[in-house]
Amino acid sequence: MADFPIVDIHTHVYTPAYLDMLRARKKVPYVHDPANGADSRLIILSSDDDASTPADQRGRPVDSSYSDIEVKLAFMKRHGITTSVISLANPWLDFLDVDDAQIWSERINNDLEETCAQVNSKTRTDTVATGIKTLYAFGALPLSAPDASIIVNEITRLKMLPHMRGVIMGTSGLGNGLDDQKLDPVWAALAQTQTLLFLHPHYGLPDEAFGGSEVTQRYGHVLPLALGFPLETTIAVTRMLLSGVFDRFPDLKILLAHSGGTLPFLAGRIDSCIAHERKFVANGGSAQGPVRDVWSVLNTNIYLDAVVYGEAGLRAAIHAAGSHERLLFGTDNPFFPPLSEKEDDIWPSVTTNYKAIEGTLGEDKEAVRGVLGGNAVRILNLN
Amino acid sequence: MADFPIVDIHTHVYTPAYLDMLRARKKVPYVHDPANGADSRLIILSSDDDASTPADQRGRPVDSSYSDIEVKLAFMKRHGITTSVISLANPWLDFLDVDDAQIWSERINNDLEETCAQVNSKTRTDTVATGIKTLYAFGALPLSAPDASIIVNEITRLKMLPHMRGVIMGTSGLGNGLDDQKLDPVWAALAQTQTLLFLHPHYGLPDEAFGGSEVTQRYGHVLPLALGFPLETTIAVTRMLLSGVFDRFPDLKILLAHSGGTLPFLAGRIDSCIAHERKFVANGGSAQGPVRDVWSVLNTNIYLDAVVYGEAGLRAAIHAAGSHERLLFGTDNPFFPPLSEKEDDIWPSVTTNYKAIEGTLGEDKEAVRGVLGGNAVRILNLN
Repeated sequence: MADFPIVDIHTHVYTPAYLDMLRARKKVPYVHDPANGADSRLIILSSDDDASTPADQRGRPVDSSYSDIEVKLAFMKRHGITTSVISLANPWLDFLDVDDAQIWSERINNDLEETCAQVNSKTRTDTVATGIKTLYAFGALPLSAPDASIIVNEITRLKMLPHMRGVIMGTSGLGNGLDDQKLDPVWAALAQTQTLLFLHPHYGLPDEAFGGSEVTQRYGHVLPLALGFPLETTIAVTRMLLSGVFDRFPDLKILLAHSGGTLPFLAGRIDSCIAHERKFVANGGSAQGPVRDVWSVLNTNIYLDAVVYGEAGLRAAIHAAGSHERLLFGTDNPFFPPLSEKEDDIWPSVTTNYKAIEGTLGEDKEAVRGVLGGNAVRILNLN
Repeated sequence: MADFPIVDIHTHVYTPAYLDMLRARKKVPYVHDPANGADSRLIILSSDDDASTPADQRGRPVDSSYSDIEVKLAFMKRHGITTSVISLANPWLDFLDVDDAQIWSERINNDLEETCAQVNSKTRTDTVATGIKTLYAFGALPLSAPDASIIVNEITRLKMLPHMRGVIMGTSGLGNGLDDQKLDPVWAALAQTQTLLFLHPHYGLPDEAFGGSEVTQRYGHVLPLALGFPLETTIAVTRMLLSGVFDRFPDLKILLAHSGGTLPFLAGRIDSCIAHERKFVANGGSAQGPVRDVWSVLNTNIYLDAVVYGEAGLRAAIHAAGSHERLLFGTDNPFFPPLSEKEDDIWPSVTTNYKAIEGTLGEDKEAVRGVLGGNAVRILNLN
């Protein structure tokens, strides 16, 4: 039992109400319940909704780890995690009809808040030593709502829910990406309320990027998940940078999933390409380029999770962030379980990240404790 | 004047014969000569061949730096580079009709060889101190030839040209990517002749990956060059890994452009996604996954250039490669010139990479000298 907090800031839930809503749908995202009583199937990626695959085998099996908070708590205990900041998993509420967005975001966020309150009301011997509560949450936003004011209202409302510590968002924004000027009221509200945005991929890259759907499917989920997801995040935040979001909203705070996708590694190349782009005013062109550079944004506006599965990536992330104090431990639970999971299994997808942190920062115990939990406690104001 | 070799292994030429061949073309890639006597325009990317842009403004201006070896030598002298391993720039010979491939690869490679021989026949005071010659080359392959034996023959023939030190190749292969089993004779020939393959991007990602062509063009070349190129390289080498190329050809040696695209940063995630892919035999599935893991391939088969423009990326590259002895300095010349170039300008795109190497390895002078030149001398057998 750790005597310091180990905080998982990247851990998802599909709440029971959310899964029921997906059960009522017939197109992506949806849940299919096999007639034979086998595990439900969750189909969230278009590439998984292949008509040539029987519905009972499409997507991935949904077991209780997706929605049962007791399973999450058992997972935490098994892996030494004292606190989790739970978030709705992708694709969140992106796909909702305009009239459904507000009601569903309120319902989901209230459910998350209630789950946190219920869990935290019980004394847990494995976490009490840290003095930090067991559960917090990032809220979901009604991005398909007919008016940005509805999104802004939900951001404001979340500040009154005691366990909310930010919001999670995909890269689609209002449907046209995160460089869409129509998002300015949302960025303004996040900055003004000091609400952390957890930016997370879902859509990946088009199959053509990998050589077509036949190539993509040949290797299962490896290309979309290992490469498509990180690039999606990198593209999204680079578009924000290029469009001047960080110039207009210098107080915006963003936590990037998967250690920034590939942003830490490519930051230098992005910086160089901007400096050499003839189109930008600063270089004699006619188009307004970004004023602040990528390193400044990395060191001021961006936090990175430590879900990168190796020291090579983690070293780049720490260096690009300017300090290990901007890195936060996460697991991506319930994704990447052991393929033949037993109830008491330790997940390699978790231990790989523990080892990378220990291997990279091991000589500095304070730094290790910071990445594992102290940074999250400070940045998210957990108490 | 350096008393140790500084070797640029990532430096391109469009030979005069190649540019003339592009002048005779009307579709990408092609060269357009404005009627008003202004600089020729080089249109190599489909995204630059926009019918709404006047032909005189499409693509990029081609000046003498693209083809005149004297300009290259002046660039080298100005930046302290004692030796360059020149290679034909993208898109190489990928686009040639089947009947033209062999004759053009022989012509280009013979021209490159002759250029090296001519330059090296003169005593150059700025390089003589190193004992290493001034120019070497990577050859181009006739990948569109009607039979793989023609490609294999050219690989064999290149071994007899005294300045050739490997071949450069894009990610298209024979047209279907580098996991195409029809490439096996090529991999076999490269491995058997111990010919280094310099793998370089050209095709980037489809515009849809960035949000459509309107988004891509809004930011000039930043998204395709800063993000598309590195991902293309990463996808290509990951497809090679997934299809078992490195299992079948464990002696293959590949130099990856731009420090591997994003491979060093994503290696851990790739490794984790493979380990968690239900489709692969090792995990209980029916499809053969790779036997060797990404770290083994990085430490055995792969070399990385140091063209990553920052310490964050370089640290990941060195750690992923397993040693700084697998990193090699490069410039990407003639690309990324200062936008208002004067004849004696020092290029920030070059100094940024020098500084990253010094910043990352500065306390180990031998390591710095290795990355700047010693590793290339050893790995490419320069003498």
